Amino acid sequence: MSDVDPPMTAVRAVVHAALDEDLGTLGDLTSIAVVPEDARGTGRFVARRAGVIAGTSAATEVFRQLDAAVTVRWSVADGDGVDAGAELGRVEGPVRSILGAERTALNLLCHCSGVATLTRRFVDAVAGTPARIRDTRKTLPGLRALEKAAVRAGGGFNHRECLSDAVLIKDNHLAHMSLAEAVERARSSWPGRIVEVECDSLDQVAEAKAARPDLVLVDNMSPSGVREAVAALGGAVPVEVSGGVDLDTVRAYAEAGADFVSVGAVTHSAPILDLALDLE
Amino acid sequence: MSDVDPPMTAVRAVVHAALDEDLGTLGDLTSIAVVPEDARGTGRFVARRAGVIAGTSAATEVFRQLDAAVTVRWSVADGDGVDAGAELGRVEGPVRSILGAERTALNLLCHCSGVATLTRRFVDAVAGTPARIRDTRKTLPGLRALEKAAVRAGGGFNHRECLSDAVLIKDNHLAHMSLAEAVERARSSWPGRIVEVECDSLDQVAEAKAARPDLVLVDNMSPSGVREAVAALGGAVPVEVSGGVDLDTVRAYAEAGADFVSVGAVTHSAPILDLALDLE
Amino acid sequence: MSDVDPPMTAVRAVVHAALDEDLGTLGDLTSIAVVPEDARGTGRFVARRAGVIAGTSAATEVFRQLDAAVTVRWSVADGDGVDAGAELGRVEGPVRSILGAERTALNLLCHCSGVATLTRRFVDAVAGTPARIRDTRKTLPGLRALEKAAVRAGGGFNHRECLSDAVLIKDNHLAHMSLAEAVERARSSWPGRIVEVECDSLDQVAEAKAARPDLVLVDNMSPSGVREAVAALGGAVPVEVSGGVDLDTVRAYAEAGADFVSVGAVTHSAPILDLALDLE
Amino acid sequence: MSDVDPPMTAVRAVVHAALDEDLGTLGDLTSIAVVPEDARGTGRFVARRAGVIAGTSAATEVFRQLDAAVTVRWSVADGDGVDAGAELGRVEGPVRSILGAERTALNLLCHCSGVATLTRRFVDAVAGTPARIRDTRKTLPGLRALEKAAVRAGGGFNHRECLSDAVLIKDNHLAHMSLAEAVERARSSWPGRIVEVECDSLDQVAEAKAARPDLVLVDNMSPSGVREAVAALGGAVPVEVSGGVDLDTVRAYAEAGADFVSVGAVTHSAPILDLALDLE
Amino acid sequence: MSDVDPPMTAVRAVVHAALDEDLGTLGDLTSIAVVPEDARGTGRFVARRAGVIAGTSAATEVFRQLDAAVTVRWSVADGDGVDAGAELGRVEGPVRSILGAERTALNLLCHCSGVATLTRRFVDAVAGTPARIRDTRKTLPGLRALEKAAVRAGGGFNHRECLSDAVLIKDNHLAHMSLAEAVERARSSWPGRIVEVECDSLDQVAEAKAARPDLVLVDNMSPSGVREAVAALGGAVPVEVSGGVDLDTVRAYAEAGADFVSVGAVTHSAPILDLALDLE
Amino acid sequence: MSDVDPPMTAVRAVVHAALDEDLGTLGDLTSIAVVPEDARGTGRFVARRAGVIAGTSAATEVFRQLDAAVTVRWSVADGDGVDAGAELGRVEGPVRSILGAERTALNLLCHCSGVATLTRRFVDAVAGTPARIRDTRKTLPGLRALEKAAVRAGGGFNHRECLSDAVLIKDNHLAHMSLAEAVERARSSWPGRIVEVECDSLDQVAEAKAARPDLVLVDNMSPSGVREAVAALGGAVPVEVSGGVDLDTVRAYAEAGADFVSVGAVTHSAPILDLALDLE
Repeated sequence: MSDVDPPMTAVRAVVHAALDEDLGTLGDLTSIAVVPEDARGTGRFVARRAGVIAGTSAATEVFRQLDAAVTVRWSVADGDGVDAGAELGRVEGPVRSILGAERTALNLLCHCSGVATLTRRFVDAVAGTPARIRDTRKTLPGLRALEKAAVRAGGGFNHRECLSDAVLIKDNHLAHMSLAEAVERARSSWPGRIVEVECDSLDQVAEAKAARPDLVLVDNMSPSGVREAVAALGGAVPVEVSGGVDLDTVRAYAEAGADFVSVGAVTHSAPILDLALDLE
Repeated sequence: MSDVDPPMTAVRAVVHAALDEDLGTLGDLTSIAVVPEDARGTGRFVARRAGVIAGTSAATEVFRQLDAAVTVRWSVADGDGVDAGAELGRVEGPVRSILGAERTALNLLCHCSGVATLTRRFVDAVAGTPARIRDTRKTLPGLRALEKAAVRAGGGFNHRECLSDAVLIKDNHLAHMSLAEAVERARSSWPGRIVEVECDSLDQVAEAKAARPDLVLVDNMSPSGVREAVAALGGAVPVEVSGGVDLDTVRAYAEAGADFVSVGAVTHSAPILDLALDLE
Repeated sequence: MSDVDPPMTAVRAVVHAALDEDLGTLGDLTSIAVVPEDARGTGRFVARRAGVIAGTSAATEVFRQLDAAVTVRWSVADGDGVDAGAELGRVEGPVRSILGAERTALNLLCHCSGVATLTRRFVDAVAGTPARIRDTRKTLPGLRALEKAAVRAGGGFNHRECLSDAVLIKDNHLAHMSLAEAVERARSSWPGRIVEVECDSLDQVAEAKAARPDLVLVDNMSPSGVREAVAALGGAVPVEVSGGVDLDTVRAYAEAGADFVSVGAVTHSAPILDLALDLE
Repeated sequence: MSDVDPPMTAVRAVVHAALDEDLGTLGDLTSIAVVPEDARGTGRFVARRAGVIAGTSAATEVFRQLDAAVTVRWSVADGDGVDAGAELGRVEGPVRSILGAERTALNLLCHCSGVATLTRRFVDAVAGTPARIRDTRKTLPGLRALEKAAVRAGGGFNHRECLSDAVLIKDNHLAHMSLAEAVERARSSWPGRIVEVECDSLDQVAEAKAARPDLVLVDNMSPSGVREAVAALGGAVPVEVSGGVDLDTVRAYAEAGADFVSVGAVTHSAPILDLALDLE
Repeated sequence: MSDVDPPMTAVRAVVHAALDEDLGTLGDLTSIAVVPEDARGTGRFVARRAGVIAGTSAATEVFRQLDAAVTVRWSVADGDGVDAGAELGRVEGPVRSILGAERTALNLLCHCSGVATLTRRFVDAVAGTPARIRDTRKTLPGLRALEKAAVRAGGGFNHRECLSDAVLIKDNHLAHMSLAEAVERARSSWPGRIVEVECDSLDQVAEAKAARPDLVLVDNMSPSGVREAVAALGGAVPVEVSGGVDLDTVRAYAEAGADFVSVGAVTHSAPILDLALDLE
Repeated sequence: MSDVDPPMTAVRAVVHAALDEDLGTLGDLTSIAVVPEDARGTGRFVARRAGVIAGTSAATEVFRQLDAAVTVRWSVADGDGVDAGAELGRVEGPVRSILGAERTALNLLCHCSGVATLTRRFVDAVAGTPARIRDTRKTLPGLRALEKAAVRAGGGFNHRECLSDAVLIKDNHLAHMSLAEAVERARSSWPGRIVEVECDSLDQVAEAKAARPDLVLVDNMSPSGVREAVAALGGAVPVEVSGGVDLDTVRAYAEAGADFVSVGAVTHSAPILDLALDLE
């Protein structure tokens, strides 16, 4: 269990669902028809593009669930950067099982590696600043555990895992009370937990500062606005930035003094990393 | 059940998994702390960007599973194009439930709409040609039913649903027999099913033509190569194109005479469509 | 919840699995393509053959899970005998949903009714004798709750529901101890539970009588053998007959004095009752 | 993974459900009470009747899920014909586990073998003709993957796996448009998929021919009607026959020129093949 | 599979749910952060208090599901009494996996051992009398199979496993018919099953005797009342006692002649047995 | 959704599992046999003992899942204290369904109310001090969401929901690095999350203070030791106490200055609150 692995319970459940939807009722018609039952072979996972790998434990689990006679050996680990053309690992066993599992394994591996690769680009973009890149709860349904592990593989950090591990007060919550009262209530209901407050303006930042949350989330401001917010908070509260962040702007936000930059795109809009399984 | 809806059995399972991973063990700490239990409100789904909507049945199901007291009414349907700023629909009910379901509903809606929107761009790019855009089995694990419905919402068509509905013979399958023999065996094992053959070269296209499959998949060729392949097949077999297809090249492939253009990116690499839920 | 209904928890699980395997990833291609989305209609369940109905609660649940907008009204109840041509009930609602659910609903209804109908034939064959027809654990995997309810609908009775509700000592259990010791141990381990003993010969029947079980199962004997066994037991222990029982022989076994006649065929080999859903 | 194996994902799910319903909350009372915990033994699967075997992978999985200490070795494979009395394979391990798994394993094995055996009888009945026997969607709920594999083991072929892999237009679909329009719409909605049309009369066959489907299903006609239908279609479209087909009539249908004969009975009404597990 | 083991199917399901709820989306943050990935270690299960052990198969399964590289070896078996300080077994493997599984394994082991320990105290309290301690259906939701096995480990016996294995007629059932009629109907509906009758008074006991059930449950009477009830029944029917039974009173009930004493508290109110896992 | 409700997704899953294990394959034999199918009735939930109620949403869900025709109305809410004899609510509907659901509903309600009641006793014991009672991860497997909500109903607070929401460094984690280094690594791996440190001695407390965690957990110390620890930390870090806490000692710990007192017993060893369902 490495630092960047998702829990195996989550991996098993996702892999079962993914295999089930791809095998259907009859299984792999093509392999059954044209590959001899006793044919054994070796497949090489190769990178078609450079990027960061993630999802190897899920890919391994696909083969294991389909046919325990297939062995999988990785020459890279989650979090490793690879060049285009690099060999990532090898599978060996019955060809029918390798081909039957191929697409499901690649779907998981390419998506997780896509998340890790995009995260790494954001991480690299803020290199040398103290800012850390964080993910959000904007994950693809059912894949959160794998995606959050892939973010770590890319060098990012995990924000809330779900609604029940920390408090994050947004505009939508403030129809019935002031921000100060909201922080007070959150502290009172959930003592010993992180209370974060989202601010859309410098006025709100000032209000938030008075309420003494653990973290201020500055949303949809310009880098210069963030700089003012950081100054206004004066180091008393760490600052997280979200909204309007892309690869072009992220460094400016980091240099504006943000402790964290949250990027929904690393999970909800990451293109896959193009990987393939070549049979020898 | 519209033409572009996924099966409700699949929707229910995805929504259950998604809610479960977002609610955690305690539920929505923030709403519990700062929103009065009896507060009722209205939320408006709005488009932050122009695009094509998909996933409304899944979003509705999120609210239904969390709290049947929330009502959801859509002013758009899956497949509708919307402008930035457009209202998509409204939810009404206990504010705690609306906020607790918000992110899960949006995660589904934004992803499905992202798939539909990207599909529509490909569809529009080939407008006026006879080519049809198709998806692939390169879907995100566990989300295939929703993504394939979103592709239809975008104006695309569905290729194989899984390994067990049609035969698709690729290079990896041909280690032990000729393409002709492979087609013969596929016909013999699975009579009455579509048999498609992937070709990487004009030589293979010629070989494929002789084997009389139902469809030829021309993979990783240039548009001019595709034109030659179409000519070589002489209308005897429909032609599908895949590999190297993006928004810049898709029209050239369509004009080269392809009947279908398959695009993995519409499911595996679609950025979300930016949608939000604004509380009134 | 009638006497002949299976538990709803079991019904829901079976129906979910059945719908999931029939709808696949895309749903009902045919209805989507050729039935207008807003078409509403009425379907009549009709009996193509005379028989006994069972499985209506499961059939209802199929429509409910697919589309709550479909209403189902039965004019018969589980356990009712019907003539060929009889109308069993009606469904009304969106035609797409009716057709999408049709086969799954019929598969359940026809199988359960087949079990009920075959059971009824055995029950009728022993009419006037004190013998009661019982099922066995020889049920189709995953369908036991529905089949055992269908047996009751046919007028039969339920034997053990599973391995954990009663003790049934067979030859295979007696490699390590005498029948008397086995009964003793069963009484000692599981006091207050039924202990039944299987006998293949009159010698064993005598041995069993001495061991004082709650029930003797006479296996694979002729009717005259059963008569002797019953006489040997002298009313001290009820007698169940199994093995070699079919519609031709069952009455002879009943007349030989058996209290119960167990028939695996009513669940494992019942042909369906031919029922259909006719759209008006 | 042989040609006649169901997908392991389906097998695991069915076996889990079957074991769960048979073990109940307490497990196998009888074995616990009367078999010593450390007793080891060998069981022989034997055929009580001649037939065709199917379901061995499921039976193996039963023992594996109950107790990995039991080893299973088969001397036959799915699809093999066996004589009455033949040994099919052996299990070895803790006697409690063998007896606890026995009935569940046999329920699966006997049912699948029953399906394979009945299929083989139909296949044999049409030997020498070009007709191929196909199954239908009339399968027992939850068991489709296993039954369809058993049909292949018996020498039959698989029709649609579910509603989402091909289009089959029946009378019920034609309330709102002509057959020609329906075929057109199906082609338009689901290009690249098989479109089959059901015909009940020669008039409909003529109409269907004009609509150019991929397959015509001739339903409930006499063999001579089928011969006329085949002649009318003149080889332009393959012909499938269904309805009114039994072992007495199937050859006449095959000789009438049908390419496929579909038989619902091979899955929905197959009596089990009588197999047993004898402990040594 | 010992006499006191729960079915492995139940164990696997409970362990999966328990691990899933404890690992969450990210896994064990602490171990990932502060334990080196390659650190291996040994943990000793030790008893902090004297008691009776149960739940070892579930604890083993926790480690197996989290990481198959962890080995578990027990020096005690379910049902063994242990002193405070005793070593129960050892786990060896990656430290991260040991610590990640620790709490889930202990939660299962401590609860099951708590049930076994409390059961043993009741069993010891009636030592020398013929009375046997039985559990009830008052188990914690989802844990029945494990708790009933733990009761056996403690020397107790299992009453009904669920609503569907035996009949138990209580006051609530008698609104519409007499007790005699109820017994008659139960015999008629479910022949060959145990019919037990609950009585709250000596009058009811007399009425029950006439109805000839298999067992009389004397509820909420004093020991002297029980003695009278036993005398009234005169050995014709075994007597079970429930209600008002605790460790102070159980012996008096046993000495009053009860065949069984049912104690809900052994499952619904057993404090845990304090066990720990010490890393070396 | 009140402050003290568990997430409905968790409730539904627990209730399904609980009903499934209690209904078995046949359902409620007794009700089927002796209660007329059309009998309707009313049941009153009543408290046999004084205590605090929790689990009403789960109890409601039991009836809903068994039979939607049963209505449930509560006159108390989770968190309400009730006297012995108080009516808690009423169910009305088919008597068979009420009786079939009774035990499962009570098992959930009595356990949750037991947890709430014991929590309230601890809360009351520290009344007037600033200390707050918290639960732990020592919950019964599968029931964590319900138990943590019940703790809140009792006036307690929730500690970590699982391993993935906060860091808690214990002795077992410190084999490979100093406490200071461990805190540093935790901050570095999981920035923005609570880092808590367990201390067994005053020396460790001093070491912990220097490491600047968010919380110090003082384990297994006497109240006077706690007082010293609090003094040593000087208000810089909040203090949580665990180990050796019971109803006799909890106030002394609270008065020693602890901010939180964690009590595993409120979830792992709470006896049920005795509640009943009386049919009218």
